[in-house]
Amino acid sequence: MTFDHLETPAPLVDLDVMASNLDAMQAYANAHGLALRPHTKTHKSVHVGREQIRRGAAGLTCATPFEATVMQQAADDLLVAYPVLGHAKLERLFTVRDDVALRVQLDSAEAIDQLAAAAVRHDRAVAVTVEFDAGMHRVGVPSLDDAMALARHVSANPPLEFSGIAFYPGHIREPVTSQDAALERLRHKVAEAIEAFSQAGLAPQVVSGGSTPTMWRSHEIAGVTEIRPGTYAYNDRTTAEIGACTWSDCAFTVLATVVSTSVPGQAVIDAGAKALGREPIRGASGEGWGALVDRPEVVVSRMSEEHGILDLSTSDWRPRVGELVRVVPNHVCIVTHLNDVIFGVRGGEVVTSWPVDARGRGYGGVIG
Amino acid sequence: MTFDHLETPAPLVDLDVMASNLDAMQAYANAHGLALRPHTKTHKSVHVGREQIRRGAAGLTCATPFEATVMQQAADDLLVAYPVLGHAKLERLFTVRDDVALRVQLDSAEAIDQLAAAAVRHDRAVAVTVEFDAGMHRVGVPSLDDAMALARHVSANPPLEFSGIAFYPGHIREPVTSQDAALERLRHKVAEAIEAFSQAGLAPQVVSGGSTPTMWRSHEIAGVTEIRPGTYAYNDRTTAEIGACTWSDCAFTVLATVVSTSVPGQAVIDAGAKALGREPIRGASGEGWGALVDRPEVVVSRMSEEHGILDLSTSDWRPRVGELVRVVPNHVCIVTHLNDVIFGVRGGEVVTSWPVDARGRGYGGVIG
Repeated sequence: MTFDHLETPAPLVDLDVMASNLDAMQAYANAHGLALRPHTKTHKSVHVGREQIRRGAAGLTCATPFEATVMQQAADDLLVAYPVLGHAKLERLFTVRDDVALRVQLDSAEAIDQLAAAAVRHDRAVAVTVEFDAGMHRVGVPSLDDAMALARHVSANPPLEFSGIAFYPGHIREPVTSQDAALERLRHKVAEAIEAFSQAGLAPQVVSGGSTPTMWRSHEIAGVTEIRPGTYAYNDRTTAEIGACTWSDCAFTVLATVVSTSVPGQAVIDAGAKALGREPIRGASGEGWGALVDRPEVVVSRMSEEHGILDLSTSDWRPRVGELVRVVPNHVCIVTHLNDVIFGVRGGEVVTSWPVDARGRGYGGVIG
Repeated sequence: MTFDHLETPAPLVDLDVMASNLDAMQAYANAHGLALRPHTKTHKSVHVGREQIRRGAAGLTCATPFEATVMQQAADDLLVAYPVLGHAKLERLFTVRDDVALRVQLDSAEAIDQLAAAAVRHDRAVAVTVEFDAGMHRVGVPSLDDAMALARHVSANPPLEFSGIAFYPGHIREPVTSQDAALERLRHKVAEAIEAFSQAGLAPQVVSGGSTPTMWRSHEIAGVTEIRPGTYAYNDRTTAEIGACTWSDCAFTVLATVVSTSVPGQAVIDAGAKALGREPIRGASGEGWGALVDRPEVVVSRMSEEHGILDLSTSDWRPRVGELVRVVPNHVCIVTHLNDVIFGVRGGEVVTSWPVDARGRGYGGVIG
């Protein structure tokens, strides 16, 4: 069916562009002997997870136990790259079926203790990677001595199994071509960590890294065995602006309708913060909250919840009320999280759709 | 049950605070002879809509036809305060049952033409309020002559019925006590509009206005018959910062778990942009993306998708990993939109819950 059959705002994914993105990342990983473990936070869809596994991904990465319970439909090897704390979340994690290999990434003794107690309760082995801070200062142990102490604490608590180390270079936001200095520092940090762990008899089997801005340069970090990029499946305006993809690699757009041209110099669309997310571009220049796919000079300059203001000062284009437009959002992972269904398109036609299975938090029932 | 039975992040609403908020706004509207038509974008829940109607609200306001199809379970008088354009959305609007009075707010001839064609198709009367720009420069006709032309265009297209004028003073973001000058300009604009329409034989039966920052001063705008506040049901950090509610009127918090204290000077919680929304405070000072309800000096200073960084530099408090905290978000309407279920709490216990019925876009089936 044609786009005008959809109620806007509606999330569209160009099927051919997505397939090409998935192929390219798998080919990169294969070429450099890296295990690809895509982060499913970007798509939250079993359908896309299966497409990644089918192409050769070693497993999938999740941010929450709920996401893991969904992604067990797509993969039998799952990493929750997040400390799992609290009885409810731990119990959710152990509902994942027994033949799925589970790994958890964490950075504290408390997280190890809680995970170990749950693993004993469920009599189930869980691999653990210890996260060290590679410069982002978000989570991750700043001191390698402390990180090694955590590794020993894991090993002392079977059925937990220490399997290696992990980092997330989310502080490297420079465009791909300007990352040399930051990558050099990262190379040094990772080498130092691997050497320290190895000399202490804790040689890491897994060295897990990778972020979207650095994804195509992961092979330059010696010792890395696994990468966890997420955004590459759909890509977005930020990824294009920093040069980690091209504009035509942006598979994901939000279809919107022009609803008002009353105020001169602008057009208002029905995609606002509740459809696009209020995510600035980081690591590159770029005003606004998204740009039109076929007129990238026209940006969403302001938003309310259900209104997006297209700034027409950069263009001679003057849309009429009722016209459809497609916006490339700044940060697609946030937009996915706002939707229940994604529409797959090819050549101006909506040809399929799939659910965003792991959107929300998985509270099934309503109490009271 | 106690809070530690919930998987975090989880949205909590204090039932007594919400009831007090609903009571206070209805009492204000009653005291000043204003029709209260709460905007349901804030809660998107039939349960809360019914609570508003039960207290005397004249009807409910929605932003989309999908929201109207949900809110017909709570009210028999609905306003879609948004131009309804495109076949799919118009058809959705007309699935609202026949005994519900429908009104649409719009600002273009194109929106009138499309709505009129659908109303004829469905043989159903629809009231229309014409929106004029009261200074926000988002939607709304800037010229009163153009607005009157639209009113005549409505009347010329039965079964549409011109019922009045509307505005949204969203540009007034000053704290409540600093709004005098802005309110004076607004008073003048509204009086001018009412007089122009009346002299032209288009005396507006409805004059619909109101926004959260100005909600308690709506009676100072002579001629206004109806107000459409939304946020007051739950309130949020922005509403408190501008003085339109107190901190203790904030009924809505996001329950979160401290997941890491590895990096000195901060604690990381499991509520990030996918749980809190990335909405700055507007119209008042206030750093960060939310603040702890019982320690408002501790703010969420940075966020990733599933990480919120609590800046501890303003506090002696040092949480341990696994500890629960409650965050008052900056903009609650965005947070509701991220959740499927709201938990109603009283005195440290979760005593009920209700669905966010109108979250999402209402795409029922998956195609292909």
